[in-house]
Amino acid sequence: MSASASSGPLLVISAHAGDFVWRAAGAIALAAARGDRAKVVCLSYGERGESARAWREGKRLEEIKRLRRDEAEAAAAELGAEIEFLDAGDYPLVESPELVDRLVRVYRDVEPAVVLTHTLADPYNGDHPAAARMALQARVLAQAIGYDAPGEPLGAPPVFFFEPHQPEQCDFKPNVLLDITSVFDRKRKAMECLPAQVHMWDYYTDLAKRRGVQLKRNAGPNLGLPHDTRAEAFVRLYPQTTTELA
Amino acid sequence: MSASASSGPLLVISAHAGDFVWRAAGAIALAAARGDRAKVVCLSYGERGESARAWREGKRLEEIKRLRRDEAEAAAAELGAEIEFLDAGDYPLVESPELVDRLVRVYRDVEPAVVLTHTLADPYNGDHPAAARMALQARVLAQAIGYDAPGEPLGAPPVFFFEPHQPEQCDFKPNVLLDITSVFDRKRKAMECLPAQVHMWDYYTDLAKRRGVQLKRNAGPNLGLPHDTRAEAFVRLYPQTTTELA
Amino acid sequence: MSASASSGPLLVISAHAGDFVWRAAGAIALAAARGDRAKVVCLSYGERGESARAWREGKRLEEIKRLRRDEAEAAAAELGAEIEFLDAGDYPLVESPELVDRLVRVYRDVEPAVVLTHTLADPYNGDHPAAARMALQARVLAQAIGYDAPGEPLGAPPVFFFEPHQPEQCDFKPNVLLDITSVFDRKRKAMECLPAQVHMWDYYTDLAKRRGVQLKRNAGPNLGLPHDTRAEAFVRLYPQTTTELA
Amino acid sequence: MSASASSGPLLVISAHAGDFVWRAAGAIALAAARGDRAKVVCLSYGERGESARAWREGKRLEEIKRLRRDEAEAAAAELGAEIEFLDAGDYPLVESPELVDRLVRVYRDVEPAVVLTHTLADPYNGDHPAAARMALQARVLAQAIGYDAPGEPLGAPPVFFFEPHQPEQCDFKPNVLLDITSVFDRKRKAMECLPAQVHMWDYYTDLAKRRGVQLKRNAGPNLGLPHDTRAEAFVRLYPQTTTELA
Amino acid sequence: MSASASSGPLLVISAHAGDFVWRAAGAIALAAARGDRAKVVCLSYGERGESARAWREGKRLEEIKRLRRDEAEAAAAELGAEIEFLDAGDYPLVESPELVDRLVRVYRDVEPAVVLTHTLADPYNGDHPAAARMALQARVLAQAIGYDAPGEPLGAPPVFFFEPHQPEQCDFKPNVLLDITSVFDRKRKAMECLPAQVHMWDYYTDLAKRRGVQLKRNAGPNLGLPHDTRAEAFVRLYPQTTTELA
Amino acid sequence: MSASASSGPLLVISAHAGDFVWRAAGAIALAAARGDRAKVVCLSYGERGESARAWREGKRLEEIKRLRRDEAEAAAAELGAEIEFLDAGDYPLVESPELVDRLVRVYRDVEPAVVLTHTLADPYNGDHPAAARMALQARVLAQAIGYDAPGEPLGAPPVFFFEPHQPEQCDFKPNVLLDITSVFDRKRKAMECLPAQVHMWDYYTDLAKRRGVQLKRNAGPNLGLPHDTRAEAFVRLYPQTTTELA
Repeated sequence: MSASASSGPLLVISAHAGDFVWRAAGAIALAAARGDRAKVVCLSYGERGESARAWREGKRLEEIKRLRRDEAEAAAAELGAEIEFLDAGDYPLVESPELVDRLVRVYRDVEPAVVLTHTLADPYNGDHPAAARMALQARVLAQAIGYDAPGEPLGAPPVFFFEPHQPEQCDFKPNVLLDITSVFDRKRKAMECLPAQVHMWDYYTDLAKRRGVQLKRNAGPNLGLPHDTRAEAFVRLYPQTTTELA
Repeated sequence: MSASASSGPLLVISAHAGDFVWRAAGAIALAAARGDRAKVVCLSYGERGESARAWREGKRLEEIKRLRRDEAEAAAAELGAEIEFLDAGDYPLVESPELVDRLVRVYRDVEPAVVLTHTLADPYNGDHPAAARMALQARVLAQAIGYDAPGEPLGAPPVFFFEPHQPEQCDFKPNVLLDITSVFDRKRKAMECLPAQVHMWDYYTDLAKRRGVQLKRNAGPNLGLPHDTRAEAFVRLYPQTTTELA
Repeated sequence: MSASASSGPLLVISAHAGDFVWRAAGAIALAAARGDRAKVVCLSYGERGESARAWREGKRLEEIKRLRRDEAEAAAAELGAEIEFLDAGDYPLVESPELVDRLVRVYRDVEPAVVLTHTLADPYNGDHPAAARMALQARVLAQAIGYDAPGEPLGAPPVFFFEPHQPEQCDFKPNVLLDITSVFDRKRKAMECLPAQVHMWDYYTDLAKRRGVQLKRNAGPNLGLPHDTRAEAFVRLYPQTTTELA
Repeated sequence: MSASASSGPLLVISAHAGDFVWRAAGAIALAAARGDRAKVVCLSYGERGESARAWREGKRLEEIKRLRRDEAEAAAAELGAEIEFLDAGDYPLVESPELVDRLVRVYRDVEPAVVLTHTLADPYNGDHPAAARMALQARVLAQAIGYDAPGEPLGAPPVFFFEPHQPEQCDFKPNVLLDITSVFDRKRKAMECLPAQVHMWDYYTDLAKRRGVQLKRNAGPNLGLPHDTRAEAFVRLYPQTTTELA
Repeated sequence: MSASASSGPLLVISAHAGDFVWRAAGAIALAAARGDRAKVVCLSYGERGESARAWREGKRLEEIKRLRRDEAEAAAAELGAEIEFLDAGDYPLVESPELVDRLVRVYRDVEPAVVLTHTLADPYNGDHPAAARMALQARVLAQAIGYDAPGEPLGAPPVFFFEPHQPEQCDFKPNVLLDITSVFDRKRKAMECLPAQVHMWDYYTDLAKRRGVQLKRNAGPNLGLPHDTRAEAFVRLYPQTTTELA
Repeated sequence: MSASASSGPLLVISAHAGDFVWRAAGAIALAAARGDRAKVVCLSYGERGESARAWREGKRLEEIKRLRRDEAEAAAAELGAEIEFLDAGDYPLVESPELVDRLVRVYRDVEPAVVLTHTLADPYNGDHPAAARMALQARVLAQAIGYDAPGEPLGAPPVFFFEPHQPEQCDFKPNVLLDITSVFDRKRKAMECLPAQVHMWDYYTDLAKRRGVQLKRNAGPNLGLPHDTRAEAFVRLYPQTTTELA
């Protein structure tokens, strides 16, 4: 597992403002470190469903949205990523052809080499599968030359689902473990940009350790892997294409 | 998908003498072309279950085994692989601790970087899952320092199931498509070393085309892929470990 | 399995007026017998899809709805439950944010300790999964302090799917068998409140016997269980939380 | 497997104009050959998502739709089938109660004895599952006497999913293999009515061979089956009902 | 669903002496009524695991085996079937190459057109899956010309799993419902040949009613089906091969 | 979730000497705290596969077995459990009727109210599923009055699979979360009795935290649950039987 050269843009499509940090900050920081464009699209701010503390403190809707936006922008900056907010509302995030069309335009603009999004099942949060369904639908539409949107037809970039909060309940069986040891410090700093969810910092630090232990167990002769290996887990949706089994 | 440097030995464990040709000749030829050691272990010759024509011609058991052996050796030579026959009998291939122990010793000797074997389900051929179960068990045993066999404890090489004859009935959902275009001629020649199964030559040539079409559909912007791309399909058993999503 | 003290309100969300009787009358009667509030919400009357006899007799839509309502109210009274009809139409029951919002308000009002609804798969009746999806979505929304509806944010009450008409075809694999022997007479009487579906009375009486036999087979040393044990089957959606394995 | 007498109308519901040719032309030609009515309903022309060549040639939307229509009509004529286009748009095919209602009316009119449609999963094409969901929902609605549409309530015709382009990725595990040898020439001619997709002619000819080989392997004592048996694969959704196991 | 002409021998392979009665008596009686040979092979008498009453009455092993044998022979005679006991012992039924070989010889002798056996999963009774595994393995071996046993190589007869006692827990999702109305009287009489399990008579009579109701729901326009339709449920293991979808 | 009275013996069947500590120490300590008998049966010491450090230090087989035994006995004592070693060998743990028979005798002696064992799938360790298969088979055999072993026929105690090292890869989807907060100190102390696996202490402490967070998310109104809730996860094999949904 050697260092990698640039391999093309990374696109992350998430339901709420904080998701990309807990679930994919390592992948994002790795892309940025390689010099690849990394773009995060948040369909909503998570203003209703993921901001319990702010509501308990009596904050109001617009204030909460601004707060979430600021935090997410700080985290994205920490990781070296662009971020865009579609402000489509959460709890529920309502699917619509218009919203899918906006995502098609993002695909045509970014021309991602890799796409990350939520799992298609999540019995704890209906917004997550809704975001995933739209992300997948838009990816297919963007491939059609006949779809009326600016830009060239998209290739067929691979899609990876990032890890949900309770993986087994979401039928999340990881088939890719990504070594994020070299950028874990940046992931931790990005997490610390989200002070309202301070209890998550350690939860996801522990998870990175746990996935790191598993990576070492699956890495074959792992002589080069350090004791404190950190990892993120993903599920690859489409078959991997390759010229070499490894 | 660029050319690859040497990445370590390939070990293929199959139930019968011909399996490695139909199901994995492309992967084997690619490894040999990279300069990697490729070793095929056949648990039996397929003398009873896979030699219908020879039986109909009135040949006898030892004659059939020799015939199968000769053909398989020729095919392996065509691919640049070593081949070893354990002559454990087929139809049924009976699992035993002794046979597993022999496989442990093969693992300790070859120290494979990649392992190929049958699927764990195959309602048409009980020898295939039996071979797979023993291949997997031996791989785990070979990792234990306390297991009493020569050589060093094995790392944890990735395992890929190669494609069975009726994939859907064997719950074979490919998650890796391997581009074998550059070595397909050698696969065809290896198939032609098995004249008793001439009806399979075109069947598996067609399959390579079919998997090639699918590879192109899953390969993202596939500008570089030729019209006649050829592929083999595999199922990866353990999570992929990587430093880059792609 | 001893008698139980009050454990909080039971909420049943169903697509049509009769569903709660065939599928959950025992659970409802048990709750009422414990002194717990039991509330049934019928999204429709089942006026188009579940009233074949009335249509064949030439009755008209409003008449059929009134008839179904009267019958369901009688059955609910027999069981000791409240009942509310949202009159959202059936065949098809159309999902909408407005209907989900009405359910959120029910959740906030009832504050259920337990929720019952349909399975998420039913190839014989699309209204059932539609009801289940809305029931589950509303439950999650009701937990968010930021969701704009009266009342306090909901806890996370357990959800149980009740038994569909052809369980295997709906991927219904029961993981809870509820002993309803003590209230089976009330279930039978509630069924008899639905004269238009007289052929179902024995069908669901036989089912209660069948599930009762299975309960005894799964109940460990079942010395205390009577010969005529009656049961209802459920699928628990979320993990059980407990202080004791049993 | 003897010749069959008339067994009632066949209804094929597909997303795009070409689908019925690649996936079900054999089943259609067999029905026509038996003297049964065969009706194909195309929800769209596939004008945006399945007409890449025409778009690259600079054709315009209406022109493309007309082209696709003409080709599909020629193919249907070759097979002896009626064809109707609902022109509901593709990429995306948007589900709506109105479109479902149109399908209900088709069901009530055709009174099919057998229904064919897409699989419920297809990660490469969201229109396919959308068509399947509407086809299945309309079938259930058409069975309800209370559903307000002309004609008699439908019986419960069996439903078969036809084969998607990448079957394993769509969880397509065939449980029916249909012998189309006697009509394969007509299927090939129908394919040749679609010149824009000439690369598919051989792909689906090869597939028919492949499924034919599998049919022979599953056909018991297959003395009567010719060497060049051709087949189409299907997944039966509901249980088969029969008076004889075979 | 018309009356059927002879279609070849039926072979039923079961773990214990009584299984064929509860699970497949209807299919057996239908075959006999068509004039087909029907042969039941019982791997054991069920002397330890299925004879609780006899043990409680103080009977001894040989006596119990004789009792079970007499009852099963009477039931088979009632159905018009041959029966053979391999007396391999139960609780546990131990798998062995020798026992599989005996089954191969049965296959070669009977040349079945249809095979019935247990499901591959049954968490309540390990003998059932053991019997199924051996039945399936022997069927594959009997197809090989190279397998050393008298008779001709077997074709590839379809296999159906019959219904276990708790179907959902055994992952039994019926895909065939067999109309046994015309022979249900004989099934009941065969059940009554097993007085030690009198509590099962009504349980399986109720089940036949239940499966009959389901058959009618899946039978399309079912004008000809009587109110008291009786059915048995099966799972078909291999794809159905046919010349007509129905 | 209130404190519990005695509910009967707990039986834990594991492959190796340390498994019960990492995977079930909380459940064991809870049982002991209630005054219930808790018995651990270790089929082997894990002398070959789970003692890498000792082998690297040059220790010999008998020494390693004694070491593992001493450690496990200390851990069991810490938890208040009995422990028995069957010394059947590991890597591989070979299944045999004799070993199953020994387990039947344990069941008949302990008469467990609850049984814990490994999952049936574990691609990292074949001994774990082998232990689980024997534990399940013996449980069924022990229920048969005709099985020749001392003691009374067993009831049908519920079985729970405890958590494997890489849960998702073992298809472990928890459906029971057990609150072990009150006994977590004892679990930690029991872990510390196993100094050779010091890297596991924190791994499983972190896991208990993680499962604790999940328990709180699934516990409904969880006002009473402390911030540092600790939990163990289990999969219940058979349906829960109950008189109350909760």
